[in-house]
Amino acid sequence: MTDFDYDLVIIGAGPAGLTAGLYAARARMHVLLLEKAVPGGQIIVTDWIENYPGFPEGISGFDLAEKMKLQAEEMGLKIDTAEVHSLNLQQDLKEVVLTDKTLTAKSLIIASGASPKKLGIGEDRYMGKGISFCATCDAPFFKDKTVVAIGGGDTAVQESIYLTKFAKKVYLVHRRDELRAAKILQERAFANDKIEMVWDTVVTGVDGLFGIEGVHIRNVKTNEEKTLAASGCFIWVGTLPNTQFLGDDVQTDEYGFIRADARMQTSVPGVFAAGDVRDTPLRQVSTAVGDGAIAAVSAEHYIENL
Amino acid sequence: MTDFDYDLVIIGAGPAGLTAGLYAARARMHVLLLEKAVPGGQIIVTDWIENYPGFPEGISGFDLAEKMKLQAEEMGLKIDTAEVHSLNLQQDLKEVVLTDKTLTAKSLIIASGASPKKLGIGEDRYMGKGISFCATCDAPFFKDKTVVAIGGGDTAVQESIYLTKFAKKVYLVHRRDELRAAKILQERAFANDKIEMVWDTVVTGVDGLFGIEGVHIRNVKTNEEKTLAASGCFIWVGTLPNTQFLGDDVQTDEYGFIRADARMQTSVPGVFAAGDVRDTPLRQVSTAVGDGAIAAVSAEHYIENL
Repeated sequence: MTDFDYDLVIIGAGPAGLTAGLYAARARMHVLLLEKAVPGGQIIVTDWIENYPGFPEGISGFDLAEKMKLQAEEMGLKIDTAEVHSLNLQQDLKEVVLTDKTLTAKSLIIASGASPKKLGIGEDRYMGKGISFCATCDAPFFKDKTVVAIGGGDTAVQESIYLTKFAKKVYLVHRRDELRAAKILQERAFANDKIEMVWDTVVTGVDGLFGIEGVHIRNVKTNEEKTLAASGCFIWVGTLPNTQFLGDDVQTDEYGFIRADARMQTSVPGVFAAGDVRDTPLRQVSTAVGDGAIAAVSAEHYIENL
Repeated sequence: MTDFDYDLVIIGAGPAGLTAGLYAARARMHVLLLEKAVPGGQIIVTDWIENYPGFPEGISGFDLAEKMKLQAEEMGLKIDTAEVHSLNLQQDLKEVVLTDKTLTAKSLIIASGASPKKLGIGEDRYMGKGISFCATCDAPFFKDKTVVAIGGGDTAVQESIYLTKFAKKVYLVHRRDELRAAKILQERAFANDKIEMVWDTVVTGVDGLFGIEGVHIRNVKTNEEKTLAASGCFIWVGTLPNTQFLGDDVQTDEYGFIRADARMQTSVPGVFAAGDVRDTPLRQVSTAVGDGAIAAVSAEHYIENL
């Protein structure tokens, strides 16, 4: 193999990428982790994590991300801020194209995570003006106001509960007649006076001149339409993989999540995937760290056998 | 389905079982975790864990196990001390046979872990009299003495380093001419004056009247045999699955580890496996917690669709 910059480049500094970096640094691989924004991934906008084993009192997503980053750096991991533009994977030596330069590496771990799915109800126009995907970021702007939350999974329910610390009322709009969230979260939501469930309902749009004033909803069983008076709308209806840079060489599933086997090997030898970006049955911090550890050890074995 | 005791019985309280219990309790499943000894699994005999993400300063295995147990119990998990004798898996309702009674459950998660592999060099006769599998447990007995350690992986190297806190000298005997352990551990071992590597060598037996006095070794390249004067012998040459109760219904790989798919489903519907006991590519705390979370969610889905 010709000259190369790194044994391993990891893309993304969420729990999967940071764990992969921790293991790779411990293995004394020449490794670089690239993160386009702030290390931590989606957990830095997660108010409180109580299901990552080892923290009986729970821990804020921000603090957990800080600890993971510190731990990996203390083992010798180098983290650079850079956005990956594209990948060239046709040759054995992988190329990672950044805005200002191209890096070469013997192996890659893609741990770029996932982002909240949009509904097409005016997200672009009303972002920062009433529409949000992040309660931790934006809930304080809605003190004593009424907001609409959309979704039925863990994130929607947990973050709606968080919203009630600020908002005077939260309509939780869900398209089905039951929640998908963990039962313990459902119990808490149902016991919360500030949360009103709006079942069998979808949000069709928002309006307002400078910010949101009304949220339009439709009951999917009766087709009845009405408008909820609210000044905020939080959307938690699932995630999409962050794979804008991926190209066509790495196989994905029908939703765009990267296919990987039990060793986190993708369809391209030497390219591994870990965490929310892969076709995993569960997207949690606990599964992301497992993926990251396996991907790093697999990358190490791959390089040893080159 | 007829009467049953539990939605879910989890076997084993290591990181995989405790995480499965945490998730199942959060899902408000009627769940029982069975542990035959002390909760924590193999990590409670692990001196120091520095590669479980979230603990930049590292954490003792005992403390991490305590935190995981406390966290699961605070979510409502019930843990009973009981040894599983056998399983009856022919019917939809699973039977877990204990010494004094039989429990029934709609689903099972097997997270019974793995145990150190023996070499057949007199482990039964010399257990507690010089042979050990646990530095944390037994190292203090060898203060200022010479001991032999066997193995070349992470455990062997890390625990050998720990032994040097007590022993005056540690021979680390390995059958190959290089270690398999993470490079950072190798560096520490090579830099440690008290550790002497004995390459290309196997241990063929031990002798001594009341305790160990000599450890017999053979160089696999030259066939030269000799005896190391030592009063202890620590064996870290891999693990075997704890599946004595398993029976023939659940498929295993050639080494006896339980085969499970990406959702932790075994060959028997409703029976899931997680952690060291399954055919995983990596046995770490970080992978065990990921397995446990997935197995619990899979068991929940399985029950919902019964």
